[in-house]
Amino acid sequence: MAGNSFGNVFRIITWGESHGRGMGVVVDGCPAGLALSEKDVQVELDRRRPGQSSVSTSRAEEDRVEILSGIFEGATTGTPISMLVWNRDAKSSAYDALRDRPRPGHADLGYVARYGVRDHRGGGRSSGRETVGRVAGGAVAKRLLAESGILVVGYVRELGGVRAGIPDDADISRLRDEAEKNPVRCPDQKAAEEMVRAIDQARWDGDSLGGVAEVVARGVPAGLGEPVFDKLDADLARSLMGIGAVKAVEIGAGVEAARMRGSEMNDPILPEPEGPIFETNNAGGILGGISTGAPIICRIYVKPTPSISRPQRTVDLSTGDSAEIEIKGRHDPAIPPRIVPVAEAMVALVLADHLLRLRMARI
Amino acid sequence: MAGNSFGNVFRIITWGESHGRGMGVVVDGCPAGLALSEKDVQVELDRRRPGQSSVSTSRAEEDRVEILSGIFEGATTGTPISMLVWNRDAKSSAYDALRDRPRPGHADLGYVARYGVRDHRGGGRSSGRETVGRVAGGAVAKRLLAESGILVVGYVRELGGVRAGIPDDADISRLRDEAEKNPVRCPDQKAAEEMVRAIDQARWDGDSLGGVAEVVARGVPAGLGEPVFDKLDADLARSLMGIGAVKAVEIGAGVEAARMRGSEMNDPILPEPEGPIFETNNAGGILGGISTGAPIICRIYVKPTPSISRPQRTVDLSTGDSAEIEIKGRHDPAIPPRIVPVAEAMVALVLADHLLRLRMARI
Amino acid sequence: MAGNSFGNVFRIITWGESHGRGMGVVVDGCPAGLALSEKDVQVELDRRRPGQSSVSTSRAEEDRVEILSGIFEGATTGTPISMLVWNRDAKSSAYDALRDRPRPGHADLGYVARYGVRDHRGGGRSSGRETVGRVAGGAVAKRLLAESGILVVGYVRELGGVRAGIPDDADISRLRDEAEKNPVRCPDQKAAEEMVRAIDQARWDGDSLGGVAEVVARGVPAGLGEPVFDKLDADLARSLMGIGAVKAVEIGAGVEAARMRGSEMNDPILPEPEGPIFETNNAGGILGGISTGAPIICRIYVKPTPSISRPQRTVDLSTGDSAEIEIKGRHDPAIPPRIVPVAEAMVALVLADHLLRLRMARI
Amino acid sequence: MAGNSFGNVFRIITWGESHGRGMGVVVDGCPAGLALSEKDVQVELDRRRPGQSSVSTSRAEEDRVEILSGIFEGATTGTPISMLVWNRDAKSSAYDALRDRPRPGHADLGYVARYGVRDHRGGGRSSGRETVGRVAGGAVAKRLLAESGILVVGYVRELGGVRAGIPDDADISRLRDEAEKNPVRCPDQKAAEEMVRAIDQARWDGDSLGGVAEVVARGVPAGLGEPVFDKLDADLARSLMGIGAVKAVEIGAGVEAARMRGSEMNDPILPEPEGPIFETNNAGGILGGISTGAPIICRIYVKPTPSISRPQRTVDLSTGDSAEIEIKGRHDPAIPPRIVPVAEAMVALVLADHLLRLRMARI
Repeated sequence: MAGNSFGNVFRIITWGESHGRGMGVVVDGCPAGLALSEKDVQVELDRRRPGQSSVSTSRAEEDRVEILSGIFEGATTGTPISMLVWNRDAKSSAYDALRDRPRPGHADLGYVARYGVRDHRGGGRSSGRETVGRVAGGAVAKRLLAESGILVVGYVRELGGVRAGIPDDADISRLRDEAEKNPVRCPDQKAAEEMVRAIDQARWDGDSLGGVAEVVARGVPAGLGEPVFDKLDADLARSLMGIGAVKAVEIGAGVEAARMRGSEMNDPILPEPEGPIFETNNAGGILGGISTGAPIICRIYVKPTPSISRPQRTVDLSTGDSAEIEIKGRHDPAIPPRIVPVAEAMVALVLADHLLRLRMARI
Repeated sequence: MAGNSFGNVFRIITWGESHGRGMGVVVDGCPAGLALSEKDVQVELDRRRPGQSSVSTSRAEEDRVEILSGIFEGATTGTPISMLVWNRDAKSSAYDALRDRPRPGHADLGYVARYGVRDHRGGGRSSGRETVGRVAGGAVAKRLLAESGILVVGYVRELGGVRAGIPDDADISRLRDEAEKNPVRCPDQKAAEEMVRAIDQARWDGDSLGGVAEVVARGVPAGLGEPVFDKLDADLARSLMGIGAVKAVEIGAGVEAARMRGSEMNDPILPEPEGPIFETNNAGGILGGISTGAPIICRIYVKPTPSISRPQRTVDLSTGDSAEIEIKGRHDPAIPPRIVPVAEAMVALVLADHLLRLRMARI
Repeated sequence: MAGNSFGNVFRIITWGESHGRGMGVVVDGCPAGLALSEKDVQVELDRRRPGQSSVSTSRAEEDRVEILSGIFEGATTGTPISMLVWNRDAKSSAYDALRDRPRPGHADLGYVARYGVRDHRGGGRSSGRETVGRVAGGAVAKRLLAESGILVVGYVRELGGVRAGIPDDADISRLRDEAEKNPVRCPDQKAAEEMVRAIDQARWDGDSLGGVAEVVARGVPAGLGEPVFDKLDADLARSLMGIGAVKAVEIGAGVEAARMRGSEMNDPILPEPEGPIFETNNAGGILGGISTGAPIICRIYVKPTPSISRPQRTVDLSTGDSAEIEIKGRHDPAIPPRIVPVAEAMVALVLADHLLRLRMARI
Repeated sequence: MAGNSFGNVFRIITWGESHGRGMGVVVDGCPAGLALSEKDVQVELDRRRPGQSSVSTSRAEEDRVEILSGIFEGATTGTPISMLVWNRDAKSSAYDALRDRPRPGHADLGYVARYGVRDHRGGGRSSGRETVGRVAGGAVAKRLLAESGILVVGYVRELGGVRAGIPDDADISRLRDEAEKNPVRCPDQKAAEEMVRAIDQARWDGDSLGGVAEVVARGVPAGLGEPVFDKLDADLARSLMGIGAVKAVEIGAGVEAARMRGSEMNDPILPEPEGPIFETNNAGGILGGISTGAPIICRIYVKPTPSISRPQRTVDLSTGDSAEIEIKGRHDPAIPPRIVPVAEAMVALVLADHLLRLRMARI
């Protein structure tokens, strides 16, 4: 109800503030018997970690996960999996000047309106650092999906106006490998270089950039998704729009679908020995809220980082007067590269939840 | 859990199939003391009703709502409000030919994969007719919002490639009045005429069109939305992506945000006697998942109606062979005009839920 | 959240007031493929129906159920099952005198404190008539349980101080058959006769009686129940204490367990070819919140009907003065016989829910 | 869904196994602005802590709580409150002999049936140690209740057959002070001495004792509780039956109500300047599931500790043969004294949840 948990059957709750003692997550509802180790989680946290390259924040956090419960002799027991990461490199003093000056593009005023109080240090709970818990929980979901042959891969398609060239029929394992080779997580190496240059320029300008990321899930069986409100695409949209800085979500042909005719948009159904398949995938693997067996394709549109060092106009809450603000913290000048593992985690959490719910659809 | 209910505190559950005995909704969690009559609900159902004009299906349903519980002496009592609409004009025989032939662009194969069985008559539960319950529930939510001075308005921005001209600073009461004057619900009368022509052409071609609708909520106070997973925009995205045929959802600048710089995207904060306001509204009224007090702006991208009379390729499930399908039912050649009241209902339901949840944010 | 729904996976929501237009229930989460007809539901409603005998209220309701959705060709489709019973014999005028006089032993004052308003006609939503929806929903749960070989049986153990003699090893099908032979639903025919006499006396005195009912479930496999808060016994306790007039719930040895030593209470574990079994069943079929495979045994203690025709002291809310009240409606002088089908329904709903949840416990 | 969380609006999730790294709880939904310190929680954990006296287990755990999130400048911020207690004195080797021998009276067989695996060390998640999280969460709930003038007090009424003499009109602050003076938490000092002797005898015999505890809440306003399934008494019953070893729960007159007549049971309503009150409190402060304003009175019947050192019959799961078991761990010979703070915590959690939900009952 207070919005810090996610999922129905496979469920996580995250806790922790940017400059508090640590970040954590409890995974509840993971079935017993799943092989799981701290290493499975650490590899995903390492992808999310700050300070990985010149294009991300210089906050240095080791982000070493400790699993405190729910595992016995290398496998899950069906009880809650509590995971913890300590905060080490919080520099709260950088935020003292911001105490009374809400940052444009941030949730600061909303928190005050809602709660009356606000932990202003590093954005508190609204910080991107909150996603540590999501990524750790998502790593468990990915392990569960892997047991069913489901693979979730994300990458950057566009950044600062630079678009990657990605063939429609590209193998997603390959895309993942290519994307992980560069700091912007773009599978097109040439575009990636341009993106890095664009980021360098934006940082020089005291400004920031937006972009587009895509997440694909392969191996999802037909039948996932509840048909009315808990449609698979509805739950994906919620999970992705719930990541800070995401302003639009699309599935399959998405925005372009609005400009097609039915005869173009509808994916023809073809006979195959193992059952019907689809000739094209404008649907993005989901029809009527239920997976079709084709790959699930989601795209998110990410706004530029709101924290910029250029002067911006705001208000001093202590006086009510106009004021100027220059944000000095350590920030990523473009969020898309680091949003990729978070978006993968959210997609994995939604799929894991619906995969379990599928077990209850028939007598 | 089975996906037929929506909302947390203000909650609805819908039931009914297109060709079953009727459609209904139960509203649970509406506070006591809200003035409510069948007329409040009927006016919204009339906007959703089929057969309103030449551009929609000719299925003739009176859709007269009966409130069966939860009202005493003209006001809500805090107990569940059960509402019922009987189905009158279902013509199931038109669907007999489709029993073994899944329709492209529909959920037919997914239902079979999920449940093993499927009520094939008129799409069963996946029919657009299911939205009767949503609109009835949304009408109650709108009444609740009205008590707090919140108005929710929707209209069509684009259809079949025709874009409406809508000034950024247009008054939304005015937009609503203009939109309700024409059968495509577009506030730009000239564009509306072109849209009607485009629809006529598409029907002639045995084809269908997509489009874009916008929903705006005015008067929403700052502070609505839970900060992590139940963000206001996340819940709006889910509610809107959960409407059949929607393939993308955006908030505020949406897709365009991905191509902006931070200095353009961030809405400057200005002092006003009643508290800080925003100079622009690229955020669409939501920052960090919490309402800012500015108007909430959502946009949905709607695919063309999947039911078209042109021949399409599918599979005969009884033989496994390739087959052709021509869909003869009565269908809207473009969904956006009739999706508007549904999208308004979903937005109203999300806002009503979060408005009540706001009461619990502080001691 | 507003408390009108019950269950997690297998879930019902009930609606309707005693003197409103009708009573209903929506069952959400019933798996597809379960054979179900109106007759399956009607048989249970007939057991709950008023006016069955001299020991119950004379309100004459046919209580004929109509299934409005969720069934296709004789079986469930996985979509919501909406069921409706019209109210026919409400006599609201009998309640006009009670409008300002809260009835002792009833929720009247609580409703006013909570909602500010109250539908005073026949108790409104707090009426025993609300259980129509529970019993209809429970009938579906019973069908689901029957597919797994689970049988739920209830009967009266004690009424107005008269205790039935029931052998510990009695077969529960037999107990059911015996209990259904008399109007007090007691499997001991001789005790039943005494109970009827006690009821007649109480009615003559303008008074009412309490009693004890027992519900047993046979065939429940080991492993049902979530180990911490959603323990099987915890959920049973909630489901049974949530029936009006129930003041205590016990499982297995129950109250007596508090006076035993560990060496008496612990049920010894014995080897059997099909796996370990228990020599005794003090646990009532549940240990640590998880079913053991032995019969589940619940007992409820029911207070005497609060509506009595003898004068009682209350307050006139319009004046604030002391007042007298004589309740003239048509009431059962003892609730236990008619609570039996309701208690069975609640136990069936809990078991159906946990039976489905068991599917998610392991990978 | 997996049963490790409790509450709707004010919600906790607990994690941790008896012999794992630690125990914890996350409180989600606590309103912002509540003054809270580690000391508020520690005082309750100290009451629950093992090794407090000769009548409890000798396991020595400091149980020092660390609050990791959700507090800023001494008050809650509306974000999740994560609390952690490390396990220090787990002696797992004592349990090696039990790996294949399910303990009578414990959940061991159920865990295996449910999950296929089981963390056998100290009972794993089914250990009484899991209640650390409940008590910590309950301490936050108590702080919230205290702000509204609500006090929750528990004590032992009966143990090993020894009954305390407690006047009906005793002040509960006084009862609490008296109860905390002796190791069995009984407000009648003379009875307390007898109880201690009974425990000593049982331990000497290698056996254990059961008992009865009572929890009273004073200052609860009228109007708490949802009227149908989430009745206040139903939720209390679930919360209390969900504590390990509890086999029966009663409210107010409880079991005795079944033997009363309506004219005895109904509490007469009397006029008072501040509004109607009740002459007696057989209802235990709840009518129709809604609080009446009178004190809430709950009673739990606790079975004797199942872990006893006397030989018991069980089965060796590795061979399937009959076997004997003698349980050598460190156990409380009677649970009631240490169940008191846990039961108080559960009652406080239920009341805090319903207190917040009351805010949504009216427009």
